[in-house]
Amino acid sequence: MPESHVARRAALRTLLRAEELDALLVTDLLNIRYLTGFTGSNAALLVHAGDEPGAERRTVFCTDGRYLTQSAEQVPDLERVIDRPSDTALAARASKHAGSYRRTGFESHRVTVDGRDALAEAAEGVHLVRAPGLVERLRQVKDDGEVEALRMACAAADRALADLVKHGGLRPGRTEREVARELENRMLDYGAAGPAFETIVAAGANSAVPHHRPTDTVLRTGDLVKIDFGALVDGYHSDMTRTLVLGQPAEWQRELYELVAAAQAAGRAALTVDRPVTEVDAAARAVIEDAGYGEQFLHGLGHGVGLEIHEAPALAKTGEGRLAAGMAVTVEPGVYLSGRGGVRIEDTLVVRESAPELLTLTTKQLVAI
Amino acid sequence: MPESHVARRAALRTLLRAEELDALLVTDLLNIRYLTGFTGSNAALLVHAGDEPGAERRTVFCTDGRYLTQSAEQVPDLERVIDRPSDTALAARASKHAGSYRRTGFESHRVTVDGRDALAEAAEGVHLVRAPGLVERLRQVKDDGEVEALRMACAAADRALADLVKHGGLRPGRTEREVARELENRMLDYGAAGPAFETIVAAGANSAVPHHRPTDTVLRTGDLVKIDFGALVDGYHSDMTRTLVLGQPAEWQRELYELVAAAQAAGRAALTVDRPVTEVDAAARAVIEDAGYGEQFLHGLGHGVGLEIHEAPALAKTGEGRLAAGMAVTVEPGVYLSGRGGVRIEDTLVVRESAPELLTLTTKQLVAI
Repeated sequence: MPESHVARRAALRTLLRAEELDALLVTDLLNIRYLTGFTGSNAALLVHAGDEPGAERRTVFCTDGRYLTQSAEQVPDLERVIDRPSDTALAARASKHAGSYRRTGFESHRVTVDGRDALAEAAEGVHLVRAPGLVERLRQVKDDGEVEALRMACAAADRALADLVKHGGLRPGRTEREVARELENRMLDYGAAGPAFETIVAAGANSAVPHHRPTDTVLRTGDLVKIDFGALVDGYHSDMTRTLVLGQPAEWQRELYELVAAAQAAGRAALTVDRPVTEVDAAARAVIEDAGYGEQFLHGLGHGVGLEIHEAPALAKTGEGRLAAGMAVTVEPGVYLSGRGGVRIEDTLVVRESAPELLTLTTKQLVAI
Repeated sequence: MPESHVARRAALRTLLRAEELDALLVTDLLNIRYLTGFTGSNAALLVHAGDEPGAERRTVFCTDGRYLTQSAEQVPDLERVIDRPSDTALAARASKHAGSYRRTGFESHRVTVDGRDALAEAAEGVHLVRAPGLVERLRQVKDDGEVEALRMACAAADRALADLVKHGGLRPGRTEREVARELENRMLDYGAAGPAFETIVAAGANSAVPHHRPTDTVLRTGDLVKIDFGALVDGYHSDMTRTLVLGQPAEWQRELYELVAAAQAAGRAALTVDRPVTEVDAAARAVIEDAGYGEQFLHGLGHGVGLEIHEAPALAKTGEGRLAAGMAVTVEPGVYLSGRGGVRIEDTLVVRESAPELLTLTTKQLVAI
């Protein structure tokens, strides 16, 4: 998608001018991937803010010799420099043309204290300005190519879970670890490059632990089984949680499930353009608090998802900003009854001018197996 | 291994006193794991340098509410604080007792520029001193428990490769991706929590790319197949490369293999206590340079391995320091003939007073399948 990279860099230049920066030295690898398509493990990118025709020609990409061929394929549209360390090489470049790079931003939320010193030494004559989170701000709103990657990642997860259930993969006697592994393998069958994060399979009392790691705990009849997992496709992460019951659900399990499902529906319904993220969290949280379980909903409602499994915006009490069309977020309320079990239900969705677009399509009816 | 954590913290306190620090604020999660055994995704640790009896009682661990139970199990032997952000919470703690924390080190190679500001604000009255890489310096030398974890990780990889070959997993017609996936699954069968890094399977001309990612390229008779992989056990990484031939090796393949094997043997033989790491690199490199392939050996000879797949020391031209007993390192020379194929042979070993201990036991004879 070279044309989308061009558009993203143009959007960044607009942002840089608004911040009164002459340029931005991008060193976060995911931000570089977002702006260029480069997927290697070392690179830096110097984006000049100029908006004259041909301004793109003033953007310079740098990586090292290991990526000579790969960078030529992935970043054919920018000037490429092969040098190492790549970040200081581009800082030196800015210094050489210091007149045009007086105020050059750097990613102060990512660059270490020692790393900044190295940059400052190389960037003589340039005023290095803290500029945290600029590319991340752009990354919150996904373009069509990104949504398509998310859609594929969500589909791989949907299909993997459907197959797992269909082929009897969720049954008493299996361990959490075995279930997690089968699920991950099935996602690979459906085109995932890997799991989006360490798959959570939590059975029985373990389901009350929000981020339980799979163990050799055996699934038993009557267990709630909480499965939180996702697929990685083209660098994009899907994220879905479903909680099922092995056998006939007990009354308390059914009630707990219905409560969380109602909260999750309220959260999804609150995904409208311009709404403060705190209000989205509050909409779902109110359902749970009204039922008296506010203390058992231990985390935020959701988070942005894309090139990172957790990215801006945070849908939480302490979140900042408002929703915009094109943001991809999770909605994942949970209630955890220590020692008994917990329920979490989570979807990945895209905020739209109309109703949000649901990307994780697995049923949210209580499934009893 | 709580007693080994106690010993590691005692060694750190000695180091801190040598650096004339009153304390160190540890924020790197692997360093915290090394010093405490905690495996969660958020924590900070404030280690006071004092060596009076009971000095351990002045070490404080902090994490957030998600890890209330887990931290009680994993870190029973330290004062625990549940707060968030954990790093600034401990900075504030130092500030409260500023008289005892005048010169408090922070991990300036890991803490971001913005992160340092937050610490400085919380640590009023404390002089925050750059203290990069102190715990990493200790981590270079492995204790018995660490070597045992590495041994198990290497054994899982050895057994997985043996089974792959035995069951015909390496045969013409399969794709690189299929082979990589089978190998990773077999490591899980042998107790790995996962692969230590993205498995490299590179067939034919792809074997000339040092860090080739598995593709749908089909293995063919006559191919060199380079396999670089490892297992993760208890947080420790194994790392091994073998290069095999499908069918009868051609003369050039055999010669290339023998050359790299000779260089690798020279590198292993150079693993002696007190030897500068640059000399180890040079010992193997000389063999390849003498044969006229110096330009085709594109990387350093090896690296430390432990809680990270790449850690200090670097066995490379630009490496620093000398070997010490207990260091775990890889020795992995390679020669890459662009467009034709490449050979890399890599072991993980522990430096000993006597001969180094080989942890990766798979044969280094040229295997023709």
